[in-house]
Amino acid sequence: MRYFKSDNTATVSEEILQAIVDANSGAAVPYGTDRWSERLNTVFGEFFGTEVRVFAVSSGTAANSLALATVCPPWGTVLTHAEAHIERDECGAPEFFTGGAKLSLVTGPGAKISAADLAARLDWFEPHVHGVQPRALSITQATERGAIYTPAEIAALAKIAHARGMRVHMDGARFANALVAQKVSPADLTWKSGVDVLSFGVIKNGGMNAEAVVFFDPALVADFEFRRKRAGQLFCKGRYASVQLLAYVETGVWRRNAERANALAARIAAAAPALLSEPLATNQVFMKMGQQRIDALGQQGFAFYPWGPVGSGEGRFVCSWDTPEEDVDALCAALSTGGT
Amino acid sequence: MRYFKSDNTATVSEEILQAIVDANSGAAVPYGTDRWSERLNTVFGEFFGTEVRVFAVSSGTAANSLALATVCPPWGTVLTHAEAHIERDECGAPEFFTGGAKLSLVTGPGAKISAADLAARLDWFEPHVHGVQPRALSITQATERGAIYTPAEIAALAKIAHARGMRVHMDGARFANALVAQKVSPADLTWKSGVDVLSFGVIKNGGMNAEAVVFFDPALVADFEFRRKRAGQLFCKGRYASVQLLAYVETGVWRRNAERANALAARIAAAAPALLSEPLATNQVFMKMGQQRIDALGQQGFAFYPWGPVGSGEGRFVCSWDTPEEDVDALCAALSTGGT
Amino acid sequence: MRYFKSDNTATVSEEILQAIVDANSGAAVPYGTDRWSERLNTVFGEFFGTEVRVFAVSSGTAANSLALATVCPPWGTVLTHAEAHIERDECGAPEFFTGGAKLSLVTGPGAKISAADLAARLDWFEPHVHGVQPRALSITQATERGAIYTPAEIAALAKIAHARGMRVHMDGARFANALVAQKVSPADLTWKSGVDVLSFGVIKNGGMNAEAVVFFDPALVADFEFRRKRAGQLFCKGRYASVQLLAYVETGVWRRNAERANALAARIAAAAPALLSEPLATNQVFMKMGQQRIDALGQQGFAFYPWGPVGSGEGRFVCSWDTPEEDVDALCAALSTGGT
Amino acid sequence: MRYFKSDNTATVSEEILQAIVDANSGAAVPYGTDRWSERLNTVFGEFFGTEVRVFAVSSGTAANSLALATVCPPWGTVLTHAEAHIERDECGAPEFFTGGAKLSLVTGPGAKISAADLAARLDWFEPHVHGVQPRALSITQATERGAIYTPAEIAALAKIAHARGMRVHMDGARFANALVAQKVSPADLTWKSGVDVLSFGVIKNGGMNAEAVVFFDPALVADFEFRRKRAGQLFCKGRYASVQLLAYVETGVWRRNAERANALAARIAAAAPALLSEPLATNQVFMKMGQQRIDALGQQGFAFYPWGPVGSGEGRFVCSWDTPEEDVDALCAALSTGGT
Repeated sequence: MRYFKSDNTATVSEEILQAIVDANSGAAVPYGTDRWSERLNTVFGEFFGTEVRVFAVSSGTAANSLALATVCPPWGTVLTHAEAHIERDECGAPEFFTGGAKLSLVTGPGAKISAADLAARLDWFEPHVHGVQPRALSITQATERGAIYTPAEIAALAKIAHARGMRVHMDGARFANALVAQKVSPADLTWKSGVDVLSFGVIKNGGMNAEAVVFFDPALVADFEFRRKRAGQLFCKGRYASVQLLAYVETGVWRRNAERANALAARIAAAAPALLSEPLATNQVFMKMGQQRIDALGQQGFAFYPWGPVGSGEGRFVCSWDTPEEDVDALCAALSTGGT
Repeated sequence: MRYFKSDNTATVSEEILQAIVDANSGAAVPYGTDRWSERLNTVFGEFFGTEVRVFAVSSGTAANSLALATVCPPWGTVLTHAEAHIERDECGAPEFFTGGAKLSLVTGPGAKISAADLAARLDWFEPHVHGVQPRALSITQATERGAIYTPAEIAALAKIAHARGMRVHMDGARFANALVAQKVSPADLTWKSGVDVLSFGVIKNGGMNAEAVVFFDPALVADFEFRRKRAGQLFCKGRYASVQLLAYVETGVWRRNAERANALAARIAAAAPALLSEPLATNQVFMKMGQQRIDALGQQGFAFYPWGPVGSGEGRFVCSWDTPEEDVDALCAALSTGGT
Repeated sequence: MRYFKSDNTATVSEEILQAIVDANSGAAVPYGTDRWSERLNTVFGEFFGTEVRVFAVSSGTAANSLALATVCPPWGTVLTHAEAHIERDECGAPEFFTGGAKLSLVTGPGAKISAADLAARLDWFEPHVHGVQPRALSITQATERGAIYTPAEIAALAKIAHARGMRVHMDGARFANALVAQKVSPADLTWKSGVDVLSFGVIKNGGMNAEAVVFFDPALVADFEFRRKRAGQLFCKGRYASVQLLAYVETGVWRRNAERANALAARIAAAAPALLSEPLATNQVFMKMGQQRIDALGQQGFAFYPWGPVGSGEGRFVCSWDTPEEDVDALCAALSTGGT
Repeated sequence: MRYFKSDNTATVSEEILQAIVDANSGAAVPYGTDRWSERLNTVFGEFFGTEVRVFAVSSGTAANSLALATVCPPWGTVLTHAEAHIERDECGAPEFFTGGAKLSLVTGPGAKISAADLAARLDWFEPHVHGVQPRALSITQATERGAIYTPAEIAALAKIAHARGMRVHMDGARFANALVAQKVSPADLTWKSGVDVLSFGVIKNGGMNAEAVVFFDPALVADFEFRRKRAGQLFCKGRYASVQLLAYVETGVWRRNAERANALAARIAAAAPALLSEPLATNQVFMKMGQQRIDALGQQGFAFYPWGPVGSGEGRFVCSWDTPEEDVDALCAALSTGGT
């Protein structure tokens, strides 16, 4: 099988695995107070060019849910896109962690939220006790349909959100892919544009089992640590998570891996540009090719997801940091030779 | 510093680290459907000598809380010891995961629950809507004061619990230490004695960041998988957790590590038997030695926890699978030269 | 002021107030085991023509939320209309009571859900742990835009829901208004059409502070009583709630009040049929009349809600059981003289 | 039967019923913004001699739980007596409303918490993420064994609590009984002694179905109104609840009713002082009389609760505001003629 289902089928980058092996020596104090964990704020602070507070957790779902629970009370609501991972793929985790806050959905192409649509959706909420109150905006970078938000787009959304007293959360499961796709800095794409808290994705792009929650305002951290502990997300042997995050940032593996995944996706898109159902921006390729072709590719050993509702004829190909070149060659060939 | 604070300051066993490295090749389907994860039920089934359902999670707190949430509704109550980890050291995680179930406490020496005390405590509950209903018993093996439950003791407790329609949960954070301390089988200490669901500890005894929840009755699993996903505890790259569990069981590292930790603790206990404040059973040594001596040991570079309320004069020494012999030698020497 | 804001501005019907006064004599056992409360199942069973289980609560929000929590687990989702009261006007109460279940929204005219739209929405859900699972359908009778579901429409929805293993909840805050608007029986509109649990509205139609949750399948009741107690919704002096429900059903006040409210609304609709933005069915009248006219009516002393998004120019007039004839006369006159 | 089971078997006082009847005229804006509801803060402010914020709810359980949820986060803990109503008789409602906060129990005679016991219990909590954090103290006035806290005792407790950053909640289900039993003012017994939020009981002492939550610091109210709405505790026809609270306070029915109930209890205590198992303070009489006598009284038609664990031989007699004199006569006679 040639895997294009998701970047979570990939292996762990050598740099990260080596960091784990290197850390496996001598006693270390537990629960995130070890000498590796204590470097997180500094290393991420340098990466983002500002003071940050960084916390390791075991999954993107946990990162998103804990971040949202910190900024949205149970009677609050999180504005997000109808196709967002937090809405569609986390089995209600945000509702669980927040104590029942509601996700209020915005639609729009590319799984992106436009400033106009956000403003229009917010008009529905009134400042009385009968309705939930908008307290957070959550956007995905890159989106669930591979699109990216520019700093200007983020800033426009954040301006609206902040004016309503809302906080801005970014689900950055594929943050590095979105970052290298633009000529901007980590700062540009986050706090400088108004992001308050970021789920900083590591696992899909070469990590093993640690993601980071990054707060750009220390005051926002509030009770986060109690929430994390209470959720079973405080690592006992904390070093093995923290070194993953450190290696990811410090060795530059984040950039190398994201660039390679994006580049492979670009090759696929170029092989059949007429089929593209979304403009290519990162490492996800969406193509409208019809069910027959979807079936044919499956029979040829390409593993990927049909996308959208049944019968849409659309498929999604995701390239990982370690997707074999020959798998991409084969897919490009299969796509360019056309079909029905 | 010589560390005797907890077995969570230890490193990861070579066998487990090697299993991770070995698994780091080629694409693997995500979310626990990879070929390693699919072996969990079989391998653990052989270990326990019965059909089991096994699920990996990232911490002992998550294991306990998800297990309890599966067997105890929000209006239920979990009977447990007042010194239990789920009561004292998880920041209310069981309450969070269960949707607000209450922990009802039983006291008793050694952090153990006796059958008589359990029965007496249960007498307080009435089958009406005004009070929470007993739905689960949670016991710790080995206990938070290093004691062990024998199969007969477990069976006596389980009989009482089952007669009330309650399920029996075992917090086995140090299950291996309790197991090798007795001439019994994993089966004897669990399902044969009436345990319904086990938090199977791996991390403290040589693992990295995966524990297992083991159900001995497939019917009990119910909605566990939804709860796990929803809690952010379903690993995206599942193989890296599952191989830890597999290596732990299959290579026998569980036995070797637990036996060594227990043996080291036995040496410490033997160095100052008069100070023992609990009978030694596993890898935790409790000694009543007075504050002066506690302070003196600290100044000599021994890191350990004073135990109990302020001024108790008690300390706890925990040996890990990788505690250096020379650290134990030094502690034994310091203790035997003794004097307050 | 002449009130057309909502039927919750009304007084309590004499029959119901008298029943309270009559019950105010002698000691009565508390918490719903008094002799009045014990008649609830019988009296409602006769009303609905089948065996039912009836529980009094203090508000429609509590009725809806407790009913939904009983049939939908935390990882479940309730399909409902985007304009439903449970989505828009209960400040997230269903999420609170269910432990974080998600409301999944369906749109459609008249705040009604069509069978086709329900089926299409359900297509999005997959039976895996990554997404919430459809467990309940909640429809409002009459809807938030005054429309009614016929028995055939309910049956079509229920058939789809039941085929997916979902339960059907009816928010009957204005159940009597919907019932008298059709030539059908209470049975036709509920269990015979597939409704599993009903929030039976009393307060808006002449009650004081008691609503009923009616289960048409005793097996569904499950843990409802624990949930009610735990929510602070079990009345201590239960008789004063139960007699409201009994008087409402037994004296026929439900029919008389609903018929009057509907008839008054019909007069308003007839006064300016060209303005109607929804077909009139019950006691709610929706008119598109422009902002100028809305303002003018307000200045003339008519209290009513502008409806929909800002600038829609729509208004809602609700008639209560006790709306004065002269207020309706005045409104009809104001509407028929037309134009700003 | 002659009822001494609880004061919740009583009827509603004429003054309160009349207030309801009087309010039953004309339209009133809903959800607590009617002209009666808007007087609550003023009337209660005069009663307590300070600025207060008052909210009506439908039960004592709701009052307690909402008050506690407002001052205690999910990872907090409420210190309370092991026999407290919130621990024993509310089916986990505080855990539900708080999102899973823990109740941490203190023991002591008379169901009272002493300052020394509170301080000792607080010593167990450490300011780290592994354990829940003390955020509230909840005391019952009068206690579940009929005892009262004096202003000095409350002040001593509050001083300890406030020093730890905790808030003080008083469960005043029988507040009036405790108040008239002492020569003190409502202010003395609450805010002047350090109480931050009070569940002000009305129902047991002559009310129908409304209790009040009284905040003595407006800043504490915070999100209370969202929580109340979300819990289904915001009355739609708010006037019928508010007039109960107003009449209770303004007519002096609180004092008359409580004095009578206490006086009746005093007669019972005086009839068999040797049997008293608690000093008499309010309207609850506890007597240790042996199982035979308990059975005999039951056969003579006295309805009351045996108390404590099975076989304790203790019984509780509660007098209501409307307990018939002749019932008390009969009980006194039965008690004074002795028995086994």
